[in-house]
Amino acid sequence: MKKLVIVIIGIFLYTSVIAEDGYRLWLRYNTIDNATLLQQYRLQITSINCAADNDILKAAQQELQTGLSGLLGREIPAQKAVTNGTILMGLPTHLPFIHQLVDDTALARLGEEGFIIRTIRHEGKNVTLITGNKEAGILYGAFHFLRLLQTQQPITSLNISSAPKIHLRLLNHWDNLNRTVERGYAGCSIWDWQRLPGYIDQRYLDYARANASIGINGTVLTNVNANAMILTAPWLQKVAALARVFRPYNIKVYLTARFSAPVEIGKLKTADPLNDQVQKWWKDKADEIYRLIPDFGGFLVKANSEGQPGPQSYQRTHADGANMLADAVAPHGGIVMWRAFVYSSESPEDRFKQAYNEFKPLDGQFRKNVLIQVKNGPIDFQPREPFHPLFGAMPQTPLMMEYQLTQEYTGFATHLVYLGPLFKEILNADTHAKSNNSSVAQIVEGTADNHTLSGMAGVSNIGSDINWTGHPFGQANWYTLGRLAWDNTLTAQQIANEWIRQTFSNKQAFVDTVQKLMLASREIMVNYMTPLGLHHIMGYGHHYGPAPWYNKAPRADWNPVYFHKADSIGIGFNRTATGSNALAQYQPAVQQQFEHMATCPEQFLLWFHHVPWNYKLQSGKTLWETLCIKYYSGVDSVRWMQRSWNGLQRFIDEERFKQVQQLLAIQEQEAVWWRNACVLYFQTFSNKPVPAGYEQPDHTLEYYEELSFPYAPN
Amino acid sequence: MKKLVIVIIGIFLYTSVIAEDGYRLWLRYNTIDNATLLQQYRLQITSINCAADNDILKAAQQELQTGLSGLLGREIPAQKAVTNGTILMGLPTHLPFIHQLVDDTALARLGEEGFIIRTIRHEGKNVTLITGNKEAGILYGAFHFLRLLQTQQPITSLNISSAPKIHLRLLNHWDNLNRTVERGYAGCSIWDWQRLPGYIDQRYLDYARANASIGINGTVLTNVNANAMILTAPWLQKVAALARVFRPYNIKVYLTARFSAPVEIGKLKTADPLNDQVQKWWKDKADEIYRLIPDFGGFLVKANSEGQPGPQSYQRTHADGANMLADAVAPHGGIVMWRAFVYSSESPEDRFKQAYNEFKPLDGQFRKNVLIQVKNGPIDFQPREPFHPLFGAMPQTPLMMEYQLTQEYTGFATHLVYLGPLFKEILNADTHAKSNNSSVAQIVEGTADNHTLSGMAGVSNIGSDINWTGHPFGQANWYTLGRLAWDNTLTAQQIANEWIRQTFSNKQAFVDTVQKLMLASREIMVNYMTPLGLHHIMGYGHHYGPAPWYNKAPRADWNPVYFHKADSIGIGFNRTATGSNALAQYQPAVQQQFEHMATCPEQFLLWFHHVPWNYKLQSGKTLWETLCIKYYSGVDSVRWMQRSWNGLQRFIDEERFKQVQQLLAIQEQEAVWWRNACVLYFQTFSNKPVPAGYEQPDHTLEYYEELSFPYAPN
Repeated sequence: MKKLVIVIIGIFLYTSVIAEDGYRLWLRYNTIDNATLLQQYRLQITSINCAADNDILKAAQQELQTGLSGLLGREIPAQKAVTNGTILMGLPTHLPFIHQLVDDTALARLGEEGFIIRTIRHEGKNVTLITGNKEAGILYGAFHFLRLLQTQQPITSLNISSAPKIHLRLLNHWDNLNRTVERGYAGCSIWDWQRLPGYIDQRYLDYARANASIGINGTVLTNVNANAMILTAPWLQKVAALARVFRPYNIKVYLTARFSAPVEIGKLKTADPLNDQVQKWWKDKADEIYRLIPDFGGFLVKANSEGQPGPQSYQRTHADGANMLADAVAPHGGIVMWRAFVYSSESPEDRFKQAYNEFKPLDGQFRKNVLIQVKNGPIDFQPREPFHPLFGAMPQTPLMMEYQLTQEYTGFATHLVYLGPLFKEILNADTHAKSNNSSVAQIVEGTADNHTLSGMAGVSNIGSDINWTGHPFGQANWYTLGRLAWDNTLTAQQIANEWIRQTFSNKQAFVDTVQKLMLASREIMVNYMTPLGLHHIMGYGHHYGPAPWYNKAPRADWNPVYFHKADSIGIGFNRTATGSNALAQYQPAVQQQFEHMATCPEQFLLWFHHVPWNYKLQSGKTLWETLCIKYYSGVDSVRWMQRSWNGLQRFIDEERFKQVQQLLAIQEQEAVWWRNACVLYFQTFSNKPVPAGYEQPDHTLEYYEELSFPYAPN
Repeated sequence: MKKLVIVIIGIFLYTSVIAEDGYRLWLRYNTIDNATLLQQYRLQITSINCAADNDILKAAQQELQTGLSGLLGREIPAQKAVTNGTILMGLPTHLPFIHQLVDDTALARLGEEGFIIRTIRHEGKNVTLITGNKEAGILYGAFHFLRLLQTQQPITSLNISSAPKIHLRLLNHWDNLNRTVERGYAGCSIWDWQRLPGYIDQRYLDYARANASIGINGTVLTNVNANAMILTAPWLQKVAALARVFRPYNIKVYLTARFSAPVEIGKLKTADPLNDQVQKWWKDKADEIYRLIPDFGGFLVKANSEGQPGPQSYQRTHADGANMLADAVAPHGGIVMWRAFVYSSESPEDRFKQAYNEFKPLDGQFRKNVLIQVKNGPIDFQPREPFHPLFGAMPQTPLMMEYQLTQEYTGFATHLVYLGPLFKEILNADTHAKSNNSSVAQIVEGTADNHTLSGMAGVSNIGSDINWTGHPFGQANWYTLGRLAWDNTLTAQQIANEWIRQTFSNKQAFVDTVQKLMLASREIMVNYMTPLGLHHIMGYGHHYGPAPWYNKAPRADWNPVYFHKADSIGIGFNRTATGSNALAQYQPAVQQQFEHMATCPEQFLLWFHHVPWNYKLQSGKTLWETLCIKYYSGVDSVRWMQRSWNGLQRFIDEERFKQVQQLLAIQEQEAVWWRNACVLYFQTFSNKPVPAGYEQPDHTLEYYEELSFPYAPN
């Protein structure tokens, strides 16, 4: 009884005093709040044995110790002996008996990062083995094991084998050298450049741990709108200091390479990729970088896009540019990720088509260590986009996925929007590039076209806010990017479930409600912002709030009006053969899905068709009616989200409960704003009333048109 | 025994799991680590009784509960009954027996914010009474009581009476609406404008608590380089939301008023303070603000200084401008703080003299609710400045002090510099404006000239960094500003002692060492940056690092060369009658202290004299030799600081120990940089060698001159 009292007091004191400020993300390691399970775990886990002769293994051991001690509410020591309940970590080279347990084929399948976790009997003891081919595998295995406990899974009779399906699993930080973050809504950059390299902020370490826990193995530190200064010696020292922190967590650093760097910092007269001096400059620069950072990952490049310099400035191709950089880093094992997000400064052609038109002809022309980094859709991270037509169109070139975690178009750090369903929708899309096995996922994995190199990147939503992402639920998108990059066959629901349990609570009622809320949130956001395939109708510049009326941008394809094309007839962008014919960039089997108004899936309708206001959809309702229904149901759904959340107060800490409650209140106001502004505006074209019974907008269209936000983050 | 085990486990779990990330500042409330003392406190404190019928009292009660529960490692409940060990909080109106204990004079002396804490016997119980005239007093009393426990002071037989000596005790945030912070080195602004007013960040609450704990009762939210947009309706809503959070902590909000706002946002054609429409505009604007924020504090104004608009743009005086704003807020009880930091855009006169020349003639012309806010010295927050000549020169006008907490000129967030000695040095200076009782402190207090209004402000060093100030020791400067504003007779040592105990540890060996380190740190910094009265020789623009050679600024008095005037003869700025005669702005008794080279205190020598290189100081050494000695001893002293700190590892948490250790390493490198650059540069004038035995600079002067930091925070 007294022991129980001690345990209870211990648990009470432990769990009640840790601030739930969100800093610990999904790695809270609070003591298991299920007393029975806690007891069972404690019997099965008593110590850690690790041949920790290397930084990665030390990191793994440290994480297990911290995690298990927290979860089990007692000190779990590292020790040399193997006893019942030992977590035994080691490579087959350390623990040769592993070869008796696991055959060579199974081990080989793990590759460089995979792991096996198995409950075994070893030297007469019940032991949990975590092993792999390389230390990184054990690190990931340790985090996986901790996840099992955090999500209160059984740990008896474990027999897990897991290897990542995608090779490069990266974050892209659009962070600038002055600590601002482009499209950042969570404070400023976490990279304290001024005090690097000497001052290593604790956040760097916790960043590395968080990423390792979800298998992210690389990070691009700098904005794709690049600054050449990062390539100069003092800045490389700062980068090297970060690389040093990340290395034990198997995370490589990458940098964005400003194409004109040879001119800007090298003082050359040109940056022509075919120029000897330029090539030499990049080669020397790469050598310099690798002397400081032997495992430097390579470069991410945005070139000849939105004002960024590039090879086309010298009448060279993207391949010329990419290959020059690739050659510079190849001797060191580095890679180049060349972004396909381009659209010509002059061409009046449908933006949808431009990246495909520029890149498809270059298929097969890139060096082996080049990947083309492609956004999930052809425009720019809209609430819904069809998959990018380049997927399946460049079989000879590894294409990597670029998703956006930061909610530039999906609500900043104010809207609860779980992007898992968006990510999966794209991955599950069938490109029909081959007779089978050519889903976007399979192309990105590299299995469709047998590429060794593969990658998935998320544009980071991380900033200096204590909870890293501004909105507590923003963390879930970061988490999901990692999990999907590791295993893209996981469902959004599975991943959401994991995240909820680790971040908040394992209480089933809570998990069920929040899971439902999260899984619905993306479509809800689509409904109150851009239903039925509308896209790119947001505020100019900062992209905050609705501005479907906006037509004053310096180029046509920056204007909302260009994208919705509302007129007295109808609304939507005709991308069929009678319009821009962007559809032709897809395989015929894909075209067929979208090309006819009558059979085009409703959620993509206005992506591909200019639809008359009174056109009857399959439901029997007109387009106009359905547009209103969507907008209004979006707002109603946010109110449902609020009611759902309000019922969860007793399950979690007051701090985060109230944070999300406040943010949902703002989200509701902004959803109403979107709905009202868009319905009022489109109504000026449809000349039809809002269906009976709907609440009327409480402001005029002019009111919405005059709103201005000069200091919205951008 | 088992009880002890429980207690030990409780303490272990409690103290070992709280991250020491600096977020909790000096309000950590960790359980008292002295077992004897803990037992004693537990006998003396058993419950809280508070007539908590008002938000301020609720805040006080909440703080006591949280604080005492943490400190005593057990739940200290709020209850209605009075028992032995009750902390009894209430006004005389709630608890009339107080009138028997405290006579009316003593109560009156407390004013609106003072408190009494007394150990009494009440209804047969031993009780600690916390009372005052107003609820704010009880709030401050509660924090004072908590400080006693945090610093492990005895709490039997308490008989404390304390009232603030200065009326307005403010922070000034140089925060911009885009979340950048001018001269901010701790991340970005903590004001999340984008998500205000709907999202109330936990930080706002903890900011309020921290400030209330040191008696700060007001905060100017916006940069003195003002943005008129803050005065528009949507932004006032955001400000009102912050005011709502701060109100229970007795903290008023203030805003900076951009003088041209009537033109910029009011669309008037002028901002002439004598213009009827302009006056009406400000009156209406004030009315609008006070409808939203009934206890709005008022305006802080920087006018006709460094490009800011002001009354002189309309050929009006500072008094005209200040009085117009004062009249607008006076009906609502508001005040205006008008900054004296001006220097003419044309006048070639010694910068030292300009504020005095502009403001002294205006003495007595300001409305009753106007204070003139004066920087501590006549130039700009240098490592050492003589007191500002305006102190004592405007007896008819309340002058308030402006100190700088953010280390713009004193090492950014990288150097450990405790500014307490700097603050005290200024406060203790005797202006000799009267035959006695006219120290700077007495002038700022208002007692010298019998002013009711008085104020002290600190330019904030707070940002989004988790530990608020970037450098852990930066917190001490924030803490000290509050304590000195409450009671300027406290010594820097007393305050440092308090802060160390609350923030780190009560272990005497630790406290003694760190106290010594802190108290020495300011002079050490002076030595390696600007010894002997040198000033303003830092890098241009960002003010990072040394640039005594710099002479390319668009105006002469922005150049380091203007301030040190090094030539083949000597170095220093002649401000005596044979020079700029700035000295004449002081009283004769003050002039005498500085006017003769032979008797001028060494630390101010080059502030007032152009001294030949071979001039022999009182020590017998030449100026040049002494300059070198100072620079070299500064560096050696930083190394002493490092050694001191290294010996303290066992006393505190690893996290902060290492942070400070890393920062001291950077400080040492930067001190060497300052030393080398300055000595090498001044040597080009002195043509003398560095004294024998000193380590030689490892770079050339050209190397230092070519260093460039385009992204240093500024």
